[in-house]
Amino acid sequence: MTLKALKQAVWEANLRLVREGLVIETWGNASAVDREKGLVVIKPSGVPYDRMKPDDMVVVRLDTGETVEGRLRPSSDTPTHLVLYRAFAGIGGVVHTHSLYATAWAQACRPIPCYGTTQADYWFGEVPCTRAMKPAEIRTDYEANTGHVIVETYRGLDPLEHPAVLVASHGPFTWGRDVHEAVHNAVVLEFVARLASETLRVNPRVRPVGRPLLEKHFLRKHGPNAYYGQK
Amino acid sequence: MTLKALKQAVWEANLRLVREGLVIETWGNASAVDREKGLVVIKPSGVPYDRMKPDDMVVVRLDTGETVEGRLRPSSDTPTHLVLYRAFAGIGGVVHTHSLYATAWAQACRPIPCYGTTQADYWFGEVPCTRAMKPAEIRTDYEANTGHVIVETYRGLDPLEHPAVLVASHGPFTWGRDVHEAVHNAVVLEFVARLASETLRVNPRVRPVGRPLLEKHFLRKHGPNAYYGQK
Amino acid sequence: MTLKALKQAVWEANLRLVREGLVIETWGNASAVDREKGLVVIKPSGVPYDRMKPDDMVVVRLDTGETVEGRLRPSSDTPTHLVLYRAFAGIGGVVHTHSLYATAWAQACRPIPCYGTTQADYWFGEVPCTRAMKPAEIRTDYEANTGHVIVETYRGLDPLEHPAVLVASHGPFTWGRDVHEAVHNAVVLEFVARLASETLRVNPRVRPVGRPLLEKHFLRKHGPNAYYGQK
Amino acid sequence: MTLKALKQAVWEANLRLVREGLVIETWGNASAVDREKGLVVIKPSGVPYDRMKPDDMVVVRLDTGETVEGRLRPSSDTPTHLVLYRAFAGIGGVVHTHSLYATAWAQACRPIPCYGTTQADYWFGEVPCTRAMKPAEIRTDYEANTGHVIVETYRGLDPLEHPAVLVASHGPFTWGRDVHEAVHNAVVLEFVARLASETLRVNPRVRPVGRPLLEKHFLRKHGPNAYYGQK
Repeated sequence: MTLKALKQAVWEANLRLVREGLVIETWGNASAVDREKGLVVIKPSGVPYDRMKPDDMVVVRLDTGETVEGRLRPSSDTPTHLVLYRAFAGIGGVVHTHSLYATAWAQACRPIPCYGTTQADYWFGEVPCTRAMKPAEIRTDYEANTGHVIVETYRGLDPLEHPAVLVASHGPFTWGRDVHEAVHNAVVLEFVARLASETLRVNPRVRPVGRPLLEKHFLRKHGPNAYYGQK
Repeated sequence: MTLKALKQAVWEANLRLVREGLVIETWGNASAVDREKGLVVIKPSGVPYDRMKPDDMVVVRLDTGETVEGRLRPSSDTPTHLVLYRAFAGIGGVVHTHSLYATAWAQACRPIPCYGTTQADYWFGEVPCTRAMKPAEIRTDYEANTGHVIVETYRGLDPLEHPAVLVASHGPFTWGRDVHEAVHNAVVLEFVARLASETLRVNPRVRPVGRPLLEKHFLRKHGPNAYYGQK
Repeated sequence: MTLKALKQAVWEANLRLVREGLVIETWGNASAVDREKGLVVIKPSGVPYDRMKPDDMVVVRLDTGETVEGRLRPSSDTPTHLVLYRAFAGIGGVVHTHSLYATAWAQACRPIPCYGTTQADYWFGEVPCTRAMKPAEIRTDYEANTGHVIVETYRGLDPLEHPAVLVASHGPFTWGRDVHEAVHNAVVLEFVARLASETLRVNPRVRPVGRPLLEKHFLRKHGPNAYYGQK
Repeated sequence: MTLKALKQAVWEANLRLVREGLVIETWGNASAVDREKGLVVIKPSGVPYDRMKPDDMVVVRLDTGETVEGRLRPSSDTPTHLVLYRAFAGIGGVVHTHSLYATAWAQACRPIPCYGTTQADYWFGEVPCTRAMKPAEIRTDYEANTGHVIVETYRGLDPLEHPAVLVASHGPFTWGRDVHEAVHNAVVLEFVARLASETLRVNPRVRPVGRPLLEKHFLRKHGPNAYYGQK
């Protein structure tokens, strides 16, 4: 994929976040990585969506974050995206939103337990939530440290088996093999977060699903023997 | 009705589920049965709704599930539909969704009590919820066993007097005399599930309606002496 | 106003209920009275809204309920409307819906307390809720008895100072000086019911507003010294 | 800016409140001040939004409230707006709505605690709530006293660091450097109010964010060293 095509894909991804109701005002950003070139394409900071063009996307170096192409400043969350790309080798796109229900769980500082098959079709268990960040981590290199606290949360977890995280007191980051899948996972996360809230309301003592149902649903869509969809 | 007309009806039913907001992504399926021919028409698995055509509907045998017409794989939930058609003689269409509020009750593992006349107009009492499936039922023939656990839940109940069920930790299945009515019941179920949630929020100790009100409303629409609507 | 114009107004009122999201399927009805002629114009029973024409409205006698004009059967709730017109001299239009939040309060069998100025602008206090109907009232003349239990609830209340009631385990009826105002009050009621639910969620121990704020808001819009709006 | 341009801006602001879903019926108003001329432009009282034209905006004197231009009566809340403009030197526009979630917190008589970075990006802490008004304040000069109780609430607070207030048992007022920003803050407030409600539902014991996160987010957007957006 050319850099031009990647800019187009990132631009479309950012606009789809608005269309899907996940982003109001300028509160969100999507990016994609080209690992061969060592470059990341990301939304500019604080620019209204309806004026943004594909060429406004900013290209930065994966290793240093230095801007390589683009007249605008990259999203203020760029350092978080870069840390995720460096740590999670299998991901090609990252999305950050303040979508209502996912952000409510993030503000509640609670992982989303897997209460049913809708979530099990996408997450191999819960949607993790980071620990609270420490004052020193907030004061200096805040955005990079946001990435580090996410990576710390994934010790022992496969990022593609839990393709979304809640940053405590902040909001969700999602990812996927490309930026299109990262947006898709942001849409699913918002539904799953709302569904978990509504479930708790009906039965505050509900328990997460057991291992057999979790394995059945995650693996029929994602495992080597997956049988959902067309071959 | 010709098989071609039935494909058209099933295709329309699947699209209406999206329009009514009951299905996002590819999370739902509708089917219809032709009992004379012994055939079931069902949505293909994992195909985006906006690309789906009437001719993409898959025709399978009611007795064996074998594909008779269609280039695509049928919905992975096909075995559940077949078990329902075999067990419930009066039904002509089946719908499965992950609609938000009905799925929340399913995840809460709770039947929806009949809190008022809106539900009593369609269900002769509660919306039943299945028991949890056992690990062995999940590991082998999961989709067929989902049908069997629904049928087990209806021992002593008339499926057309309770035209929807919640599969615990999963989501709703609805049905009707044809696929159009099955979709209609999915729309009503979602409203009734949300209404029950909002009712509980206002009064957590609310009790189901008594027998006289239940009989009055269900029977004025569905009994032999029904007087709702036009003759 | 001619009978033809009244049919047009009632038809428009019924369609507006759908547009405002207060009615799904065929679950609602609006009517208007012509007190000089002693006639009531009301929606036909169970007819889909998108096929309904002004001429499908049914004209019945206010005193006996006998159909005077129209090929279709009047709404099954007609006897309730007639009882209200006979008992409440000042009203010209009646609306019945199963709108989500108002119906939730009705199912919760709770009047809606006046928690703020939004409600006080329209109701001079709470939105009343009827007592539960008795089995004998349900079994015989159910719809007329629904009207009688509403009238009983208004002993000592001015219907135009509380232009909506919740029928326990059923749903809301609203009214106004004409059918347009009855629809307007149905829209406001739904908002007020939702607002009360959301208020309770934030503060379950919230108390109704005091008399001074209630009088200020109701009377600045409705009293002889009203100063809201244009002269 | 000419008075004609200010009328246009105020008219647009009022219409945007409807489009954003913050105002139903005629329940809201936006105004702007021209401090050099000592004039305030405000919406007329109780006029339907779809018939309102820029020239219907009413011009009143900032000092006395006397109408200077316009055939219609100004919003009944005009005295509240005037008190705010006189007390808060830095503001150029004021908005009042009965938007659902913000009004629910106002009716609950609770300030909105800062549960996360979404709120910290706009409010340097909580969204304040006024004390209840006293009977004498309600009976005489109610609308002006509504302004005074807001001003009392801001003793020791910078209005632009907390650009919205909840009037207890009533609803929100927001403001900004101009009327466009006041509308923007009304949109953000409604989101933040809903987000706080959803957060409480997931974790009723959630605590407000600590000082470091609050400072980081508010100041990266609003402080002298702000680095969000384009330079």
